[in-house]
Amino acid sequence: MGSLPIEKKKWIMNAFAMSSPGHVAAGLWRHPENRSQQYHNLKYWTDLAKILDEGKFHGLFIADMLGVYDVYKGPDNIDPVLPGAAQFPISDPFPAIAAMAAVTKSLSFGITSSTTYEHPFSLARRFSTLDHLTGGRVGWNIVTSYLENAARNFGLDTQVPHDTRYAKADEYLDVSYKLWEGSWRDDAVVEDFKSRQYTVPGRVRRINHQGEWFKSAGPHTVEPSPQRTPYIFQAGTSSAGKVFATKHAEAMFLPGMEPKVIKRGVEAIRTLANEVGRDPNGIKLIAGILIIVDETDAKAQAKYDEYLSYADDDGTLALFGGWYGVDISTWGDDEDFRFAPGFPGAVQGMLEAWSAMVPGGQSVKWTKARITKELALGGPHIKAIGSASTVADQLERIVDETGIDGFNISYAISPGNFQDIIKYLLPELRRRGLFWDDYAVPGGTARENYSADEKGPRVRDDHPASKYRWRAGEDIPQYALKEKSVPVLNDNS
Amino acid sequence: MGSLPIEKKKWIMNAFAMSSPGHVAAGLWRHPENRSQQYHNLKYWTDLAKILDEGKFHGLFIADMLGVYDVYKGPDNIDPVLPGAAQFPISDPFPAIAAMAAVTKSLSFGITSSTTYEHPFSLARRFSTLDHLTGGRVGWNIVTSYLENAARNFGLDTQVPHDTRYAKADEYLDVSYKLWEGSWRDDAVVEDFKSRQYTVPGRVRRINHQGEWFKSAGPHTVEPSPQRTPYIFQAGTSSAGKVFATKHAEAMFLPGMEPKVIKRGVEAIRTLANEVGRDPNGIKLIAGILIIVDETDAKAQAKYDEYLSYADDDGTLALFGGWYGVDISTWGDDEDFRFAPGFPGAVQGMLEAWSAMVPGGQSVKWTKARITKELALGGPHIKAIGSASTVADQLERIVDETGIDGFNISYAISPGNFQDIIKYLLPELRRRGLFWDDYAVPGGTARENYSADEKGPRVRDDHPASKYRWRAGEDIPQYALKEKSVPVLNDNS
Repeated sequence: MGSLPIEKKKWIMNAFAMSSPGHVAAGLWRHPENRSQQYHNLKYWTDLAKILDEGKFHGLFIADMLGVYDVYKGPDNIDPVLPGAAQFPISDPFPAIAAMAAVTKSLSFGITSSTTYEHPFSLARRFSTLDHLTGGRVGWNIVTSYLENAARNFGLDTQVPHDTRYAKADEYLDVSYKLWEGSWRDDAVVEDFKSRQYTVPGRVRRINHQGEWFKSAGPHTVEPSPQRTPYIFQAGTSSAGKVFATKHAEAMFLPGMEPKVIKRGVEAIRTLANEVGRDPNGIKLIAGILIIVDETDAKAQAKYDEYLSYADDDGTLALFGGWYGVDISTWGDDEDFRFAPGFPGAVQGMLEAWSAMVPGGQSVKWTKARITKELALGGPHIKAIGSASTVADQLERIVDETGIDGFNISYAISPGNFQDIIKYLLPELRRRGLFWDDYAVPGGTARENYSADEKGPRVRDDHPASKYRWRAGEDIPQYALKEKSVPVLNDNS
Repeated sequence: MGSLPIEKKKWIMNAFAMSSPGHVAAGLWRHPENRSQQYHNLKYWTDLAKILDEGKFHGLFIADMLGVYDVYKGPDNIDPVLPGAAQFPISDPFPAIAAMAAVTKSLSFGITSSTTYEHPFSLARRFSTLDHLTGGRVGWNIVTSYLENAARNFGLDTQVPHDTRYAKADEYLDVSYKLWEGSWRDDAVVEDFKSRQYTVPGRVRRINHQGEWFKSAGPHTVEPSPQRTPYIFQAGTSSAGKVFATKHAEAMFLPGMEPKVIKRGVEAIRTLANEVGRDPNGIKLIAGILIIVDETDAKAQAKYDEYLSYADDDGTLALFGGWYGVDISTWGDDEDFRFAPGFPGAVQGMLEAWSAMVPGGQSVKWTKARITKELALGGPHIKAIGSASTVADQLERIVDETGIDGFNISYAISPGNFQDIIKYLLPELRRRGLFWDDYAVPGGTARENYSADEKGPRVRDDHPASKYRWRAGEDIPQYALKEKSVPVLNDNS
């Protein structure tokens, strides 16, 4: 056999935003070209969605927090986030979605929602409703919420312990899958004029879930939507988080500032996926990144430097405090945090990794001032700054070294940074065969476009949701048959 | 003084819908001109909203149920609602709102949401977000949920007792008001480029609510929205419900089939409002109605009869079973329900009232067949069928006799029935000086347009939410000052 040209893997390109004046760029609300501080106007969202849809981004992904970062200069100090609008104020990511869907054709929407503070019955209902209204273009970014303030907003004295949150989340997903896949038979809704049946009796059933954390009778109130189960995203970095994610996620966000660290994550996930019986390549792995691109390297760098002049230091350190639980205000100005006793290992490792990326970077101390500057734009993620060719080279190197499937792209200013990517970077990626010319399924579902190797809008057979599926022709779903076959002992009623 | 022409009160005209193939017209999904079975497509909602906005309806009001009607042919029987799509399937009313707001200018949106199954922190956040995105055009129809199935969907073994639900709802509102009115000072957000302040430190505070039913720390995560507190709707028929409604509601939906019954409701509410220190005329009273109007009485009647031929009897009786808790399938065909022992008094009264409206109607028995027919379209509300002049006469008589402020108008087919009202009835009402030529405040908020005698988008001073307001210049809100001034005894900590 002669050697055939190997077709390169096409990347996932995802826009990463938040319903807040600033996401990972505290203070940038003041930049004259930034529009993200108009997040409370619908037009900001519909304009952004149109730009991304025309640019053929896979999706718009909206992060969320159910509280405020109050560790820095704390404890319990709200004030430092206020001037820079550091992820605060922040509003509900759900309500704007349908308005964006109405003005776009193929763009998907990833919505962050927590399993910790809402009963699965209502969240499953909201996602099913949106899956209908968007024509199957929704994904759920599952979080369990790590903010102490969020717990207290919802009436708890403190957070549910971390591993318990994941155990609860796991059952939360089971309840949701039962509602989405197992409460309405695939052929339940017929809208048949002759038999006068909108839905056929006998083809809708209660789920009667009784678990350790949740009970729900059902039936699901929403008829089967295009995807049934929304496309599932997750970002799990802890052990419990990784196990949960490799079981449920169809796409995962990976942390890490340098390829070596990201690669370790990729390998850990592919191994775990294999262990739980899922096709390791069926889980799309996406790395967070900030991309500032322009005609030339110099112009891009000048842009970045200009953005940086708008950054709000207190806001940046407040975000840092929230992410790592450390109030950096009490530390000395000359302290090198890589070696500071009592400083979280995760942060030390991150700073080590970052240092390693810069030639000679290990000799430069990670002081408060340096952390402030490096995290100001894009947070603790990779930064790619330069011309299309420079950025494409860097991204290609990352993909080659790590095996990831694409990028989750944050902004310093929005939609400007996304427009630059569409103008400069995507044509370059297309020339290299690394980005699609059009959506895999124009007008299709999130699942069809993110996992372009899949057939149709339903979950794969190796995904845990599929075992709850109620297929046409079955009296009751297979999973329920199994539940029924468990003999009930001593049942004298 | 000479006699001046008295300007007539302009009515509120509200469209009443549900995110379901059928609302109060089981089986009508099959009607060739009906589009409400397209409720899962965004375009159905955006088209309907545009029609209502151009027709200058006050609002679109979306009812909701968190479960299925399973009393009829029961217990726990899902099947009877399925062929006729009797309020089932039913999806979440929130997600479509922003898409409708994007294509309209002045139409308000009343959204039904329950205080029984969700923590106030997340619902307050969702309403604030929507209040921003719609430019202040949202109202909240507060319900406490009466469906037994809803309780079991949310993991309860049975419903929270009725009066407890209202006690809980009352505290729920207090938490919400604190978040909406008292967590961000009116001048907290300045977006001041010079001082680099998006929000001014010290002008956002936690609410630290600790009540009998709820705890919430805050702060509210959403910056102040146009109305702060969404416009508050409520429908309370029980004693506890009426007390709750006269305390909190700015507009109320009244039950009743005949003016005499409605008038009793109006008087009871105005009296109660007076007792709790609210201006009795500050609460808008709105009666449910089905209006079928056409060029002539005969044409309208023919339309109604044609609609009736599509009605689904099982669906109608399943709704009846859910509303009144009675499984009518076990009763005899000849039974006159007005005198049936054990039949709920509320229903007996309703049937009595209905009988009284028809000349000689009291001699006609209320059999199962008659109930089925009379409730098929529009449910237990007034029906007005005829030419514009006939319907206008009937409506005018009702308003004159009862003192209500307007109507909440359901449909047999949608948007057809609303288009007929816009084409035939509204011009007639305008000729009579009973309906506005344009919105009181075009592009304004729900509060400004429903309560057109009000100044601005905020709650009136006599509304309980106003006492939580944090005004510009105040160090902390007045209500919190009062809380603080309570001496803490034996505090030796």
